Amino acid sequence: MSTKNVYFFGGDKSEGKAEMKNLLGGKGANLAEMANLGIPVPPGFTITTDVCTHYTQNSNTYPKGLEAELDKAMAQVEALMGRKFGDNADPLLLSVRSGARQSMPGMMDTVLNLGLNDKTVEGLIKRTGNAAFAYDSYRRFITMYGDVVMECRAGDKEEDPFEQLLHAKKQARGVEIDNELTADDLKELVAEFKAMIKERFGKDFPEDPKEQLWGAITAVFGSWQNERAFTYRRMYHIPDEWGTAVNVQAMVFGNAGENSGTGVAFTRDPASGENVFYGEFLINAQGEDVVAGTRTPQTIDKLQEVQAAAYDQLVSIYKRLEQHYKDMQDLEFTIEDGKLWMLQTRSGKRTGMAAIRMAVEMEAEGLIDKKEALLRVDPEQLNQLLRPVFDAADKKAALADGRHLAKGLNAGPGAASGRVVFSAADAVAWQSRGDQVILVRIETSPEDIAGMKASEGILTAQGGMTSHAALVARQMGTVCVAGCSVLKISYAKSEMVVAGKTIKEGDWISLDGTTGEVIQGQLKTLPSETLQVVLHGAKSEGASTYKLYAKLMGWADEVRRLKVRTNADQPDQSLEAVAFGAEGIGLCRTEHMFFGGERIMAFRQMILSETLEARKEALARLLPIQRADFQGIFEAMEGRPVTVRLLDPPLHEFLPHGDEEVVQVAAEMGLKPEDVIARREALHEFNPMLGHRGVRLGMTYNEVYEMQVQAIIEAACAVKKAGGKVDPEIMIPLVSHKEEMRRSKEMAVRVADAVIKEQGIELDYLVGTMIELPRAALVADQIAEHAEFFSFGTNDLTQTTFGLSRDDSGRFLPFYVDAGIYPVDPFVSIDQEGMGQLMEWAVKKGRGQREGMKIGICGEHGGETASVIFCHTLGFDYVSCSPYRVPIARLAAAQAVLLND
Amino acid sequence: MSTKNVYFFGGDKSEGKAEMKNLLGGKGANLAEMANLGIPVPPGFTITTDVCTHYTQNSNTYPKGLEAELDKAMAQVEALMGRKFGDNADPLLLSVRSGARQSMPGMMDTVLNLGLNDKTVEGLIKRTGNAAFAYDSYRRFITMYGDVVMECRAGDKEEDPFEQLLHAKKQARGVEIDNELTADDLKELVAEFKAMIKERFGKDFPEDPKEQLWGAITAVFGSWQNERAFTYRRMYHIPDEWGTAVNVQAMVFGNAGENSGTGVAFTRDPASGENVFYGEFLINAQGEDVVAGTRTPQTIDKLQEVQAAAYDQLVSIYKRLEQHYKDMQDLEFTIEDGKLWMLQTRSGKRTGMAAIRMAVEMEAEGLIDKKEALLRVDPEQLNQLLRPVFDAADKKAALADGRHLAKGLNAGPGAASGRVVFSAADAVAWQSRGDQVILVRIETSPEDIAGMKASEGILTAQGGMTSHAALVARQMGTVCVAGCSVLKISYAKSEMVVAGKTIKEGDWISLDGTTGEVIQGQLKTLPSETLQVVLHGAKSEGASTYKLYAKLMGWADEVRRLKVRTNADQPDQSLEAVAFGAEGIGLCRTEHMFFGGERIMAFRQMILSETLEARKEALARLLPIQRADFQGIFEAMEGRPVTVRLLDPPLHEFLPHGDEEVVQVAAEMGLKPEDVIARREALHEFNPMLGHRGVRLGMTYNEVYEMQVQAIIEAACAVKKAGGKVDPEIMIPLVSHKEEMRRSKEMAVRVADAVIKEQGIELDYLVGTMIELPRAALVADQIAEHAEFFSFGTNDLTQTTFGLSRDDSGRFLPFYVDAGIYPVDPFVSIDQEGMGQLMEWAVKKGRGQREGMKIGICGEHGGETASVIFCHTLGFDYVSCSPYRVPIARLAAAQAVLLND
Repeated sequence: MSTKNVYFFGGDKSEGKAEMKNLLGGKGANLAEMANLGIPVPPGFTITTDVCTHYTQNSNTYPKGLEAELDKAMAQVEALMGRKFGDNADPLLLSVRSGARQSMPGMMDTVLNLGLNDKTVEGLIKRTGNAAFAYDSYRRFITMYGDVVMECRAGDKEEDPFEQLLHAKKQARGVEIDNELTADDLKELVAEFKAMIKERFGKDFPEDPKEQLWGAITAVFGSWQNERAFTYRRMYHIPDEWGTAVNVQAMVFGNAGENSGTGVAFTRDPASGENVFYGEFLINAQGEDVVAGTRTPQTIDKLQEVQAAAYDQLVSIYKRLEQHYKDMQDLEFTIEDGKLWMLQTRSGKRTGMAAIRMAVEMEAEGLIDKKEALLRVDPEQLNQLLRPVFDAADKKAALADGRHLAKGLNAGPGAASGRVVFSAADAVAWQSRGDQVILVRIETSPEDIAGMKASEGILTAQGGMTSHAALVARQMGTVCVAGCSVLKISYAKSEMVVAGKTIKEGDWISLDGTTGEVIQGQLKTLPSETLQVVLHGAKSEGASTYKLYAKLMGWADEVRRLKVRTNADQPDQSLEAVAFGAEGIGLCRTEHMFFGGERIMAFRQMILSETLEARKEALARLLPIQRADFQGIFEAMEGRPVTVRLLDPPLHEFLPHGDEEVVQVAAEMGLKPEDVIARREALHEFNPMLGHRGVRLGMTYNEVYEMQVQAIIEAACAVKKAGGKVDPEIMIPLVSHKEEMRRSKEMAVRVADAVIKEQGIELDYLVGTMIELPRAALVADQIAEHAEFFSFGTNDLTQTTFGLSRDDSGRFLPFYVDAGIYPVDPFVSIDQEGMGQLMEWAVKKGRGQREGMKIGICGEHGGETASVIFCHTLGFDYVSCSPYRVPIARLAAAQAVLLND
Repeated sequence: MSTKNVYFFGGDKSEGKAEMKNLLGGKGANLAEMANLGIPVPPGFTITTDVCTHYTQNSNTYPKGLEAELDKAMAQVEALMGRKFGDNADPLLLSVRSGARQSMPGMMDTVLNLGLNDKTVEGLIKRTGNAAFAYDSYRRFITMYGDVVMECRAGDKEEDPFEQLLHAKKQARGVEIDNELTADDLKELVAEFKAMIKERFGKDFPEDPKEQLWGAITAVFGSWQNERAFTYRRMYHIPDEWGTAVNVQAMVFGNAGENSGTGVAFTRDPASGENVFYGEFLINAQGEDVVAGTRTPQTIDKLQEVQAAAYDQLVSIYKRLEQHYKDMQDLEFTIEDGKLWMLQTRSGKRTGMAAIRMAVEMEAEGLIDKKEALLRVDPEQLNQLLRPVFDAADKKAALADGRHLAKGLNAGPGAASGRVVFSAADAVAWQSRGDQVILVRIETSPEDIAGMKASEGILTAQGGMTSHAALVARQMGTVCVAGCSVLKISYAKSEMVVAGKTIKEGDWISLDGTTGEVIQGQLKTLPSETLQVVLHGAKSEGASTYKLYAKLMGWADEVRRLKVRTNADQPDQSLEAVAFGAEGIGLCRTEHMFFGGERIMAFRQMILSETLEARKEALARLLPIQRADFQGIFEAMEGRPVTVRLLDPPLHEFLPHGDEEVVQVAAEMGLKPEDVIARREALHEFNPMLGHRGVRLGMTYNEVYEMQVQAIIEAACAVKKAGGKVDPEIMIPLVSHKEEMRRSKEMAVRVADAVIKEQGIELDYLVGTMIELPRAALVADQIAEHAEFFSFGTNDLTQTTFGLSRDDSGRFLPFYVDAGIYPVDPFVSIDQEGMGQLMEWAVKKGRGQREGMKIGICGEHGGETASVIFCHTLGFDYVSCSPYRVPIARLAAAQAVLLND
């Protein structure tokens, strides 16, 4: 722990600097840095985060000597400002602000104009000659101090007590806005505020400036321990030990008259990223007036007209700060009586588009290097370049028109309009006759796959970010709003009721999958420029955003060591993924291949068969179909590795659900409907997630896996014979015991080698498994005796590690995340603290048994930044994700190297 | 590895001894030991298990020098027997047997009469003067050798080829039994056997005795690697490295004439345990004749009449052997021409009753000490003393009468007869009018609890050993046969079809829950004597079996360190458990308390309420009911610790299922049936096991847990105020994240302390959690920051670690266990290899965080021997199991100490 507790800043020399963020907080460190650069900042001092920790750990007491240090720093401030704190004749006024390492909206924020009382206010009047300004400052001080320090607050449904009195005063005076009140009005208000505090809250407002100051400092440190801050820290993984700093700074007044003002600015355009000075200001105003929005600020270029000197100085400062920090800065400034003061600088928030443009352009300008440029873009932001978009004006008009219907989960980014249908079959039928459709379902199932593909967008009432609908939509690149629980869908009436409106089949709706918004009517959608070029090439190759994207991706590929594969099970999907940069298929699900037309009939025949012979006959019909599927994928992937997962879902998922369909299936199969229903009921499971699926099917129905292995290897042989390249990997799902792996491997090798021998060809292939159950991770060494690769199925591993059904979690998981019980949705980002232990264990044990074993991930986490970085640190060979997330994974993989090496 | 490969035994001096079981196998070591004791055994030698390992690891070759060692040992045998192996004039004949450390039915067994060929058979005739005997021996030799060494076997559906020829010969000669065939017949048969082997299998039967011998030895060693043996080893956890030994021994002939014979005997009665010589024998027979059962053996005491000297010698030997081995021995002997030879001694298998009686009586005799006595009883065997039983004659008659219907899982031991009902409501109604009923259900649910309690026995078509039915039945001590999948139950028709018979409502059936048998009609049942005394005391206190039981249990209690608690949620159940020796309640489930009459209505009202206020109102109705329940249990347990688990199952389990009930519930609640159905559907879950339950309910409906804590603590205070003792422990289920525990603990302490303050009383209580999800084990240190005790919920932990639904596993788990994929059903015995790692981890991390933390188990495994021992080795404080398993756990806990210390 540092023995120095208070750090002075101001003049041209500070005791702190930008690198001391941990000790001084972000705001304090940057104020010190600016002063060191000779940039005018109101002088002040920072009380360190260590003092906060001391305060917390020592029954809310301060370290010895703090007061003396504070007095010393105060003397420096007084000297620089030429005024004394508490001086009745010409008082130094102060601002007190919290400032943690990282911005924390859960904390106490700001008290301005501290040091005012009934005596010092007279001094202020004397100095400024402006009684209205002085009393306005005084009543603002009491309001802020009363609220954040003295906690004089209204009940839940009541108006703020200070606002009540202000409002009454304005009514009494017959004025509309605050600064129409006179000095006398404001003076009366000050008295009324104090009386109210005494009467209603039983407290005396402190007149002594020193008492005011210590009260404010203690309130900031105390706020570190309040429940709101605690919850906020849980949610954003901020350690309790960090603490907050307190910044005490001389007040400067943007509201001291027409020669004063205040503003905020960005060194580049935070929306587009363009290298132009961007900002706005208000004349004769304090910062809170800019935020309150009661007056409309002017754009920053207008400042040149009214405050030429200050503007020129500001331009020179902003350029200097961007050069110094080598990043776009978000600035706050105040002009008091023509003199410019900088109040804050920090890295500015930006859109995805802007992030990419700035990163690439700053590299070109020589401001940053490629590595830094790669770290400047949040991989998630790439999404914004790739998704179709609504015509902005069109959407704005619709919202203004009251056509907002609901907001769900932004499960599949992009924008889509279409006519509502309530069944997959209708989606296919309507689309085939030329309609654009949005498929609306309570939830989707694998049966709906064709209808989902035929739709522009998918809207579901149930299911989370990794529900079937969300998963398939992201893989297909289809727009999807999921878990929109306010929808009341009636399949029977072919309608849904939402926001008091009834939307019928055939009505137009629009989905913004990037925001989760559902809008009534048709909106114009545009494919993004970058997407156009990535998927369709040359046409607009010259497009500027594409060039930025391509340059960044190129750098990422130079740096990263993790390979990036995709989850795809169709040739066109595979080609799309390759366009996004996929280097292989990490998960080719075979169950989707069993749906549609002849396939599903043959597969149902297999399921409904009573004997092994009948099952084999049905499988014989499926063999050539599967073989052709695999061949198409192998050809599309041109020798890149393709991991094919053998059948995973329980058989009942393939049987018909509705009564009508049962009758139809029975007829086609020559069975009675009762037989089909009986079989379906016999296969029913209470917990299908934990049921008869994956390798358990392979153990009990060997013939299914045998057929699939035969189809894979025959397809591979066919491609190779035709002169192509092929790299097949056979993956056994849901293994939890080495014996399952031993027998599956033995089966796969037996079948594969027989095909290879028959075809008279040389072919390499691997047989491996998913690690998707806790037990598989625990005995990974035993499983690695037989498995030649591991692929982490983190969706199921999350479900079993937490005992948490993805499909059912919608009822409490959002609450868990909102309330900070879980720091993050474990289906979105890998639970490193818990499940991560199993993953680390499995890698260690697996490679301990089989040196250099290939290890990857094929769960949805494979396209999420933090998870990709985690996989890198565990030493994975690759991550695999849905096609549209491949660029995200590529950038995240590059960042993993830059952050870890 | 030993450098000596062959160990001679015989005469009065062997190279091996009993302690060398690992090297010589069980049979070989005991033969050597008997010879050392001067007991007559046919001389021979054992080829060690190390040779087997060498053979397996060196491409099926033998260690150098083995042949020379064998020849040397053979010479010793020849010298003792006065005959030479392969001598045409007076051939020494041999038996060759496998002999592993542990008996393995999967292995090659025995070849007798080895050394016979067309020439030596003449020598045998010459020596014995009995051509029929010689050729009979020869044809037996060819049959055995052809089968087990040469693998001349029939196809699946064909009769054995040797049997075919034998059968044809008997037909041709017009005789019924084998030994009516003449020497000539048998000689012809020998030739026909050899011709058949040549013709059908293309092999020559080896004439050279040495070639025969090496063929047999190699077959034994080779059989260690066959698939059957492999599977067997997997199933019984026998390491591949153990290997088998081969025993080669001089033949002695019990079938050499009327002065010869063979038999088996036990040194005490293996059924009753009585200290009497027990066995049977056949004159002029070989061992296989005793087994074949074509002739009826005589009881051992008759041997005295026909072979007085041999009998006396046998009696003296059996006494000596029991004294020597200090255990009941299972003996094989042969008398050749009046001379007694011992062929085998080993510890004999016994019933539970016998095991207990022998253990206690041997201790009284001074043969063994108490510790040894405790290890002699398999804890599982105690079941046999405690369960009600069918009148044996009655059952036998029923089976003879063709009234066997089906066999299911022996889920709840004991015997019960009753009239079939198909609903819980009927069970209650019929029982209340005086009928004995058996409740037959496809499966049971918590709703059925009253009906289950009203029934003599429960029979289900679905669900495994830990299904709801099985679990509740064992806890209640009710007879249960579960997962009897051949039943075709029609609720609509109120009947079931099984074994071609239609059993209607009201028909009598009987369940043997100890064997899983379902029998048509009514059988007489008797409560076991021990149970009578344990539960009802004095009446037959003098009963002999009870005395044995009580003595053994007393010793167990002296030795064990693990406490044994019970899973119970009603006062009478608790009292029963205490009678069985329970020292507390490890799991008091509160959900059962919500069923029945007013309770369920109030609870449903809670679930169906839309607002917090309405829910609280409903809970207020439940509070006094729960409080009374807890008070009853606390009073029954008289100060013993009682762990109460707060509400665990998802809410939808409490809503009505049938249409009629929905209408009724809606009416009572003043709701529309649609509302009830809508709420039920809104609560529906795809995977309820992984759904909105346990602490997740506590987080989203705080008021439920608050009411429960209030009820528990108010009940505890009431008991204490009345002068009683009470030790409550509040347990939070399904915790997987420290934040769930932190908030639950905070809530529990807040509510509890408020009650304690209000009541003005001192009360200690603990708040802890179940460890039943992998993540809870992984972050046990974090959870232990807040949890004051851990109780492993190994049922759910098994489900999530394996990703295996207990309720759905019936379709493949039995196959998995049968096929040796899982060595044992993980719901029956803890998966130490996989899940055990999580448990060990959690104990280590939990106690690392909170020193000396109390740790127990309340899953079903807490009453299973191997699991109890495992818990002991992990350092648990207690195990908890259903009342009827408490004695089993007590004995297992004692054995854990004896085996580990």
